[in-house]
Amino acid sequence: MAASASLTLSQPALSRSSVPRHGTVTQQPTSLSTLAIPSFSGLKSTTTSSARATTNRQVSSTRRFVISNAAVETLEKTDTALVEKSINTIRFLAIDAVEKANSGHPGLPMGCAPMGHILYDEVMRYNPKNPYWFNRDRFVLSAGHGCMLQYALLHLAGYDSVKEEDLKQFRQWGSRTPGHPENFETPGVEVTTGPLGQGIANAVGLALAEKHLAARYNKPDAEIVDHYTYCILGDGCQMEGIANEACSLAGHWGLGKLIALYDDNHISIDGDTEIAFTENVDQRFEALGWHIIWVKNGNTGYDEIRAAIKEAKSVTDKPTLIKVTTTIGFGSPNKANSYSVHGAALGAKEVDATRQNLGWPYEPFYVPDEVKKHWSRHNPDGAALEAQWNAKFAEYEKKYPEEAAELKSIATGVLPAGWEKALPTYTPETPGDATRNLSQTMLNALAPVLPGLIGGSADLASSNMTLMKMFGDFQKNTPEERNVRFGVREHGMGAISNGIALHSPGFIPYCATFFVFTDYMRGAIRISALSEAGVIYVMTHDSIGLGEDGPTHQPVEHLASFRAMPNILMFRPADGNETAGAYKVAVESRKRPSILALSRQKLPNLPGTSIEGTAKGGYIITDNSTGNKPDVILIGTGSELEIATKAADELRKEGKSVRVVSFVSWELFDEQSDEYKESVLPSGVTARVSIEAASTFGWGKLVGSEGKAIGIDKFGASAPAGKIYKEYGITVEAVIAAAKEVC
Amino acid sequence: MAASASLTLSQPALSRSSVPRHGTVTQQPTSLSTLAIPSFSGLKSTTTSSARATTNRQVSSTRRFVISNAAVETLEKTDTALVEKSINTIRFLAIDAVEKANSGHPGLPMGCAPMGHILYDEVMRYNPKNPYWFNRDRFVLSAGHGCMLQYALLHLAGYDSVKEEDLKQFRQWGSRTPGHPENFETPGVEVTTGPLGQGIANAVGLALAEKHLAARYNKPDAEIVDHYTYCILGDGCQMEGIANEACSLAGHWGLGKLIALYDDNHISIDGDTEIAFTENVDQRFEALGWHIIWVKNGNTGYDEIRAAIKEAKSVTDKPTLIKVTTTIGFGSPNKANSYSVHGAALGAKEVDATRQNLGWPYEPFYVPDEVKKHWSRHNPDGAALEAQWNAKFAEYEKKYPEEAAELKSIATGVLPAGWEKALPTYTPETPGDATRNLSQTMLNALAPVLPGLIGGSADLASSNMTLMKMFGDFQKNTPEERNVRFGVREHGMGAISNGIALHSPGFIPYCATFFVFTDYMRGAIRISALSEAGVIYVMTHDSIGLGEDGPTHQPVEHLASFRAMPNILMFRPADGNETAGAYKVAVESRKRPSILALSRQKLPNLPGTSIEGTAKGGYIITDNSTGNKPDVILIGTGSELEIATKAADELRKEGKSVRVVSFVSWELFDEQSDEYKESVLPSGVTARVSIEAASTFGWGKLVGSEGKAIGIDKFGASAPAGKIYKEYGITVEAVIAAAKEVC
Repeated sequence: MAASASLTLSQPALSRSSVPRHGTVTQQPTSLSTLAIPSFSGLKSTTTSSARATTNRQVSSTRRFVISNAAVETLEKTDTALVEKSINTIRFLAIDAVEKANSGHPGLPMGCAPMGHILYDEVMRYNPKNPYWFNRDRFVLSAGHGCMLQYALLHLAGYDSVKEEDLKQFRQWGSRTPGHPENFETPGVEVTTGPLGQGIANAVGLALAEKHLAARYNKPDAEIVDHYTYCILGDGCQMEGIANEACSLAGHWGLGKLIALYDDNHISIDGDTEIAFTENVDQRFEALGWHIIWVKNGNTGYDEIRAAIKEAKSVTDKPTLIKVTTTIGFGSPNKANSYSVHGAALGAKEVDATRQNLGWPYEPFYVPDEVKKHWSRHNPDGAALEAQWNAKFAEYEKKYPEEAAELKSIATGVLPAGWEKALPTYTPETPGDATRNLSQTMLNALAPVLPGLIGGSADLASSNMTLMKMFGDFQKNTPEERNVRFGVREHGMGAISNGIALHSPGFIPYCATFFVFTDYMRGAIRISALSEAGVIYVMTHDSIGLGEDGPTHQPVEHLASFRAMPNILMFRPADGNETAGAYKVAVESRKRPSILALSRQKLPNLPGTSIEGTAKGGYIITDNSTGNKPDVILIGTGSELEIATKAADELRKEGKSVRVVSFVSWELFDEQSDEYKESVLPSGVTARVSIEAASTFGWGKLVGSEGKAIGIDKFGASAPAGKIYKEYGITVEAVIAAAKEVC
Repeated sequence: MAASASLTLSQPALSRSSVPRHGTVTQQPTSLSTLAIPSFSGLKSTTTSSARATTNRQVSSTRRFVISNAAVETLEKTDTALVEKSINTIRFLAIDAVEKANSGHPGLPMGCAPMGHILYDEVMRYNPKNPYWFNRDRFVLSAGHGCMLQYALLHLAGYDSVKEEDLKQFRQWGSRTPGHPENFETPGVEVTTGPLGQGIANAVGLALAEKHLAARYNKPDAEIVDHYTYCILGDGCQMEGIANEACSLAGHWGLGKLIALYDDNHISIDGDTEIAFTENVDQRFEALGWHIIWVKNGNTGYDEIRAAIKEAKSVTDKPTLIKVTTTIGFGSPNKANSYSVHGAALGAKEVDATRQNLGWPYEPFYVPDEVKKHWSRHNPDGAALEAQWNAKFAEYEKKYPEEAAELKSIATGVLPAGWEKALPTYTPETPGDATRNLSQTMLNALAPVLPGLIGGSADLASSNMTLMKMFGDFQKNTPEERNVRFGVREHGMGAISNGIALHSPGFIPYCATFFVFTDYMRGAIRISALSEAGVIYVMTHDSIGLGEDGPTHQPVEHLASFRAMPNILMFRPADGNETAGAYKVAVESRKRPSILALSRQKLPNLPGTSIEGTAKGGYIITDNSTGNKPDVILIGTGSELEIATKAADELRKEGKSVRVVSFVSWELFDEQSDEYKESVLPSGVTARVSIEAASTFGWGKLVGSEGKAIGIDKFGASAPAGKIYKEYGITVEAVIAAAKEVC
């Protein structure tokens, strides 16, 4: 296949919001218009025809070899003065942007410019004109506050997302250069970072994804998946527990293609890291099973950095930590090596002094011609890389059509047609079961039809019921398997899942623990929601219904806490149909994470529940009223929907007209039409009772000032579940009494 | 002072809820009735007079020496058969209790019984009859699921909280032996564990507290503070990021009196730890600055365990990790060393087999007489230890009355009289300031009058404004100082603060980060609330008002998420008086944690705000209506109270009668009388508008179905704060428009 061919296994717009966030229209790669087309070959590269032409002209076979071997070999040839000029360009783009915004973090970009230059100019394989090319190397700036480093690099590399005007709009309303890297704003940014430690854990997820796909799809004659994950992290990331969790797993899994560069600058916001961080980081990473390299001069030791990356690539059975000792704010004569350069503009005087010190006579935002020229090769080179890979994939597809189809589904996010037919349905006659068990049924029904489904639990697989029985464990030596064993590392698990989700839009990562322990991973869950990572959170033991483990294990406020979080779906299914319905929506929601709160205890299949109803968030399951005017509306979720149903039965015996509404997902209900909402909760009917074994916080809006919310506004207790339900008044009798009070 | 003296520097009932939680009355030590007496000497030991008499008779000077040297020396004398019998007693008490409850975790107690026996019988200094004796050694079972180990030990040691009937009520409604250790249910349990990793971090806090007090109050002639913190943690704790965070700090601070025993049994819930946990734990801890000892035979190597503890004590400049390799479920012929013994009853058949295997012919819950007799010495010995210490303290008090008074305040929780007068007040004429700065003013005003105030930030001291300017940093070699540098370790910080709070009721720990990063520490914050640890969470940058850092740093759902959490006070003060008011309540609330959400941006001092009003949670700040019938009520919190005030001014100009209500703490308002509530939010006035730069979730209940809640139900954005406020419609104009709509 010729290099000019337009077939590209790129990540399409599924990973981009088509709705602009802040009033500006985000520029979309033209390929994205073909999104709706399920056929793979319809996805086009964004490489312009002129770029492609250039490619055809310029890329000789030798050159091609050099490129596809990741350029480390080319580096030695580049003249050091030019490299230095490029590095200073990066520094001053960061300085100038922060200065113009009068806000931001110049210190990291100034210190990390050398490693940034080497990565983006010499090492990494990417196509600036198609940031979603599947086989690109991934880069994560875990120390996200230093985002001007990445914006400067994306700009020099030729990404359309960061033009000069974008740099000038750093940290301004509607810009594509926000204060921390946001994948949903800036094509070329892989994940959303800023909250420290998340990025390195995302990088572990990205590297896991690569290792898994490579093991699953590469053939002896076709290494179709083959890319690296690079990450820059700082002292702050290193202190965070999430980083240790994720890096322990990276070592355990032997993620040889994960290369983390640790910006060892000894400065954090409070000053010298000596005041709070005196551990031996190298030794800790060695203990975690990493290969360690120390670059002692990260400021000007370009060859050291190059050699370190080369060495890191040669170690294939372990991730590598390259400790790069740098000077924060390098070049600033009065602020370098101090916390004052970390998070504030240098100020005009110090900017001048830095310009003088580094011999930079140019006006703000200037990119010298030779630097521009030097970097300009990345457009044709990137196009060539992608074209070569496309040709390789075309060969692969001919030989291995089934594998190619699966990989395409993962790479494009186009789910196999009819996948949802795998979901079972239930009738009230079906024997009851815990929704955690029903969840396992769904996972095992979906695993064979969804190639991107991969996941596991934080050491609670047998309690969360998350094993896909047809697969083994994803491990160092069995990376083609799909059950992931996260150990007791909830926060790391969430962030790794985000990394998997954002690697390719057809990945459907799920992860699991007890619902109460979402508290341990809330930082990562919020990033799922913000960064549009469609992770499925399988959260079992969802209430006091777990019984004896007591209040440390019994969620109370968690449903409310997630209902308040933007862009996340909080499900609390009541039975088999609702669990199936929740999975249907969750799988479809590739840009919105879902949390499924599932019961430990057995629940009956209720009359009236359905997959379709679940998709509406709130719906009537039974009703003996006419004219949309019941005497009372009983609203329940999850395990308490049964209680509402039983109470309705009793009330109906007494002659009342009673509507029972399942409120399985508040967010989905909110999105329905006013007409539909009125058909379920008519404004004229103020006699409403809700019941949920959780905080009543938020229910006021639904039951209104005339209604009653039955719930639990204190911590739980250690006792058999039935006893706690009774003592806490989560009973049929309580619903009946409340119903009589309100109507 | 004679050993029979009744003066005891004990932790009084301040650390115990006087309201029974689940319908049973928790037995209170008799000393607690004296709680209200601020005088120190009025606090009595719970040692009964007969126990004291015994003490007087039995404790010879030699014996006293042995006891006060922590008993390691006595151990060698104890006969091994008896030790083994005691250890098996512990094992079977756990087995039998789990069996009777048909729920629980027998595996850990069976494996850890030897180290448990040695700690409680041979090493630790405590007084069973006064679990709150100030100078006791602290014990934390970080692997809280193994709580039957601790209950068995407390039972044998003679604590009144765990009688035989309590063991038989394991995991039942209203018992003092819940499914995980809960300090608020069971005197003798120091902290609440279960969520893994919390306990070891609490232990770091306890050890910090000891080191701090020892440095601050010990004199060359009076070592008045001198106790150890012991902790048992398992593989699960070791995997959690929070544990690494806290242990990194423990190493940094050189907490030589922290001795952690790591139950290295290679089994977690999902099976062999090989599947997810292959790091080198010893090496990691060495990197963290710990002293490491490996006990290879934790099952029967009693002398190894003893020697390890002895060695650990001899290392005074580093915390020690004793890796104790054990067999989970030791003694069970068919289930030992497997996950099946971790978290479920053995079953009658296997219990029988274990009885046979360990040569245990007794009925369930039996304690052999010689074991009983052996342990019976802990009552008199404990009383003697406390009496000796009391005598020592009496001497100390004579020589150092000022220091003694401070230490008493910390140990008893009785705050110095009139402390609250240190809080400044403000008028609208006082220049405006950010509430984060006002918070610093409060901390610096309170530090000189509250000896127990200690705290700091997770590497954001200069942003959170948390430095107490008159003190230096608490560090390895300056542990008497009171500014704590937590590094970027939010979760560890929260749990360490819980440990400090629960060390002594007069400690008032505070800790700080950006409000959005409560997501990183929510696991610890929930334990603060559950375990009645009065930590003050100083959470700045509380909304989109932080501006350019963007959505990763802008809290939206966080206020709602904490308003839904039981037993916690969520404050969002609007100005100087409200910040002072929030601190007043927070300092007084020693059994309920407080979160202060504080602005980055400058806010004016508003008319009508007050410390007294803040204490009511919601109150009227301005009103031009009569007869409790305003045309409209505008409700605001924090930075938006200014917006409400300005909107009111405009509306009043147009002839409306407008009430402005500050809703600084929903929880405190909920606790007011119905009458008061009606006086602020009369039910007849349904024209209500709320404004808060956060999720509207929960506001429905307050504004009602006729009202309007103005807020932010999506993620924030990176831009200057004023721009975001305008674009998101958090404006005076929006309030005016909404007010006109509703009235």
